[in-house]
Amino acid sequence: MNSEFAFIETIRRRFSLSKIGDDCAVLPKDSKTDLVITSDLLVEDIDFRFDWTTPEFLGHKALAVSLSDVAAMGAKPVWAMLSIGIPETIWKTDFVEKFYDGWFGLAKKYDVELVGGDVSKTPDKIVIDSIAAGLVRKNKAVLRSGAKAGDLIFVTGSLGGAAAGLTLLENGVRYDAAANTWQRNLLLKQLSPLPQIHAAQDLNEKNLATAMVDISDGLSSDLAHLCHASKVGAEIFAEKIPLHKNLRAIGKSFDENLDCALNGGEDFELLFTVNPKKKFQFENELKNYNFSHIGEMTANVETIELISDKKSSILEPKGFRHF
Amino acid sequence: MNSEFAFIETIRRRFSLSKIGDDCAVLPKDSKTDLVITSDLLVEDIDFRFDWTTPEFLGHKALAVSLSDVAAMGAKPVWAMLSIGIPETIWKTDFVEKFYDGWFGLAKKYDVELVGGDVSKTPDKIVIDSIAAGLVRKNKAVLRSGAKAGDLIFVTGSLGGAAAGLTLLENGVRYDAAANTWQRNLLLKQLSPLPQIHAAQDLNEKNLATAMVDISDGLSSDLAHLCHASKVGAEIFAEKIPLHKNLRAIGKSFDENLDCALNGGEDFELLFTVNPKKKFQFENELKNYNFSHIGEMTANVETIELISDKKSSILEPKGFRHF
Repeated sequence: MNSEFAFIETIRRRFSLSKIGDDCAVLPKDSKTDLVITSDLLVEDIDFRFDWTTPEFLGHKALAVSLSDVAAMGAKPVWAMLSIGIPETIWKTDFVEKFYDGWFGLAKKYDVELVGGDVSKTPDKIVIDSIAAGLVRKNKAVLRSGAKAGDLIFVTGSLGGAAAGLTLLENGVRYDAAANTWQRNLLLKQLSPLPQIHAAQDLNEKNLATAMVDISDGLSSDLAHLCHASKVGAEIFAEKIPLHKNLRAIGKSFDENLDCALNGGEDFELLFTVNPKKKFQFENELKNYNFSHIGEMTANVETIELISDKKSSILEPKGFRHF
Repeated sequence: MNSEFAFIETIRRRFSLSKIGDDCAVLPKDSKTDLVITSDLLVEDIDFRFDWTTPEFLGHKALAVSLSDVAAMGAKPVWAMLSIGIPETIWKTDFVEKFYDGWFGLAKKYDVELVGGDVSKTPDKIVIDSIAAGLVRKNKAVLRSGAKAGDLIFVTGSLGGAAAGLTLLENGVRYDAAANTWQRNLLLKQLSPLPQIHAAQDLNEKNLATAMVDISDGLSSDLAHLCHASKVGAEIFAEKIPLHKNLRAIGKSFDENLDCALNGGEDFELLFTVNPKKKFQFENELKNYNFSHIGEMTANVETIELISDKKSSILEPKGFRHF
């Protein structure tokens, strides 16, 4: 059996599933609107560790990962469902209440209504399935497949912070009074990521993104997904990748920090492409956002070139995969 | 911490969640249609055992439990999502392919499209979250809350089979060549239940059900949910409960078989109520279905009386609960 990506591709072809393969499925709602919907499974000891996070952070992150998928379609999140399985020992504590506090804290910010879900017992690990849905103008969901050669590539915010936060956790640093400010910033990026909802909606309302994907698996992987869906290639510039400002504090080399930003995953920033003819409009109308222009799409199908010090190398997708 | 039902009720009140508490959430789709949606978590060693079932049965059942919720709203299922977490050892086998075969076998029968989901690794147990959505005429979803005192209570099919099948599994009987026909019937009821989709849609198209719920936790529990939501009570007749035809073969007493039917759960039949004024229309237009009239709703709020040999006793909800 191959990776989960290969497996999903096989299932998609075998059963002719046209709605599988983007950040969300796009479903017709009414004459003016489409519904987008996504489901994300979070498993203890695979996607998170109980003693590395807090119930509130975990509740927040469960919703954030799904809202990030909704954002990647350029949609406005509207409702969500939450299924949670927990061991009896955890059920007896205040974990679940605090978990829902974290979930609702983020839901309130974007006016997302909890409409359903399930509560189940598990033998010994926590498992969460987070479902979120959003609305978008008819046929205007931003797909992974819309990029053309020549389109400019942008990312929101900065990259590598979540992976660095994970390294801190692995090294025993916790989000507590003993942590420095720079450590807390990196830990927050890992434990309590913020989906880029407003930026995505603004981009879409102005028809500026030709393709979009959220950076959950890692820039190298998610850019590869976008290239695959759009049947194009990409070249990106190492010096233009926006590294998280606190990466330097860890004291590693530029190349190590770059690796974190390229392959780390879980930043939940957005990667999107813009038609070069709209560059002026883009710069003019979206100047309030922190977007970085990191490269261009090319006709070199499914090949990603990384330019560093004017030297080019092939960037292989190295982000997180389950199998 | 109380039962999961009490917990969900607390969350519902605390965050004013109006769409929580029925078999599905009802969401506006367009001017003529509502969307109903449900999510069901199935956890290994809680909801199923790996060596008691087959991958195909498990795939079938994962979808069946959610389609049963869609049926309970009187809706027509249209699409579904499937999130599955599996250990690496299982990923390397043909389990996942066979699981999807079972899932798609049922999906094809009701023209349900897989539109999304997630695939994740777990440390050691399988976990499945099944999401299904259906369409129903605007404001015509059949809720749990519509029953009035005097309404007639019906159930589809027969009860107790799934619980008896579970007892067989616990006693070492498997769905294989060594099993008798009656054992296979009971095992199928537990391992591969059939959602009552056509009956539910017919009932709803003819405006015949005032309230409906699927029998997943057990008749006593699910009737209690319906009484609670409708703010009424019920009286049901022991002799009218349709026992599964193969229950007798187990060789237990009538009272033990009745207990199986009242409290066993997982039959995935439907429990619904009909206005007595519509009794003639109901009997006339739905005579092709196997419905049993088991009692009446009463004004004795949230009290369920069980009449047996003309003696009345209070029936407490005793179905399955996680906590």
